[in-house]
Amino acid sequence: MAHETYASCIAACNACADACDHCATACLQENDVKMMARCIALDIDCAAICRLAAGAMARGSENAKAICALCADICQRCGDECAQHKHDHCQQCAQACRRCAEECRRMAAM
Amino acid sequence: MAHETYASCIAACNACADACDHCATACLQENDVKMMARCIALDIDCAAICRLAAGAMARGSENAKAICALCADICQRCGDECAQHKHDHCQQCAQACRRCAEECRRMAAM
Amino acid sequence: MAHETYASCIAACNACADACDHCATACLQENDVKMMARCIALDIDCAAICRLAAGAMARGSENAKAICALCADICQRCGDECAQHKHDHCQQCAQACRRCAEECRRMAAM
Amino acid sequence: MAHETYASCIAACNACADACDHCATACLQENDVKMMARCIALDIDCAAICRLAAGAMARGSENAKAICALCADICQRCGDECAQHKHDHCQQCAQACRRCAEECRRMAAM
Repeated sequence: MAHETYASCIAACNACADACDHCATACLQENDVKMMARCIALDIDCAAICRLAAGAMARGSENAKAICALCADICQRCGDECAQHKHDHCQQCAQACRRCAEECRRMAAM
Repeated sequence: MAHETYASCIAACNACADACDHCATACLQENDVKMMARCIALDIDCAAICRLAAGAMARGSENAKAICALCADICQRCGDECAQHKHDHCQQCAQACRRCAEECRRMAAM
Repeated sequence: MAHETYASCIAACNACADACDHCATACLQENDVKMMARCIALDIDCAAICRLAAGAMARGSENAKAICALCADICQRCGDECAQHKHDHCQQCAQACRRCAEECRRMAAM
Repeated sequence: MAHETYASCIAACNACADACDHCATACLQENDVKMMARCIALDIDCAAICRLAAGAMARGSENAKAICALCADICQRCGDECAQHKHDHCQQCAQACRRCAEECRRMAAM
């Protein structure tokens, strides 16, 4: 079944969405919040597309590959931004984003 | 501001999401529901990506064009399926999908 | 049909989601972004529940009233926060939130 | 941090959303799909509120408890419906829903 075939990609999407949501809030509480504006904006986008992608895979959607291809791009962009900030939540989010980008690219190429 | 530049595309996305959500439920109440399975599945995908796209545009996201390009493809696919069914909700949904696909393609090409 | 009965509440939810999404981004670009942190956080919540509520109403969901009751509370809270800031996007968002709270309360009491 | 305090409830929400999304698609492929209409409709609602709740908790939102209280009710309703059907995906979904309802009630009462 779709939700099993895609299990590791769904897990990566859920983990990435959670990390992005957490990072967005943590960024808002930093002293240098102005410097974090792009990070927050990308976190919001990335959490949204990751949750959409997880749902599409769990439904075995015929659009799942196309959605994962876009998700990979957005995760990559978010991970690259997060990686530039020293905060723990940004570093952890960067890792989750890059892992999710990799999983989504593999899924899109299946 | 972004939400004004994109106002007509946002409106098309919101209208398409509402039409798809309504069509999904109406399909589930048809006697020939088995024949409507792909329509329902595409309605769910299409409503989800349309609401995501509306949000991304309203936020003036740097990912908005890429999201709209994918949204256009999913709307097209959903509209093509809906157009094959005679039910009023399907015909109305097909129109909303095609209008949204057109708006999203224009937005993605801006 | 559900999507017609609820048309004005769905429209209010879509408008409120768009206003909140726009306000969140605009707040992130303000000089006093640190002061806007709660506004941004509430905008994110409010946009999400408004889009969920619009979908539930468009689907004629049996959970629509309960979702609208919660949506009204979150809109109220977001509108009250936005109203305290002088920025145009906050004032406009406050109006959209309060109108949506009112529509959702009416819908929940139907 | 919020996303750690709520980790088990977030995990339950993600698992329940995935199970509901999978169940919706699997129900659409059953021969007795007409009998599954309410199950499908509740699966769609439940997946949506579970993903919203996971995000709210990961953001440490001040609305997280209220969202989890509603999520518990919708999970309960969806789980009760799923439990009435013999299909494996329904039985598995019922379990995920009930576990999520329990976690969400605990979270709402914190």
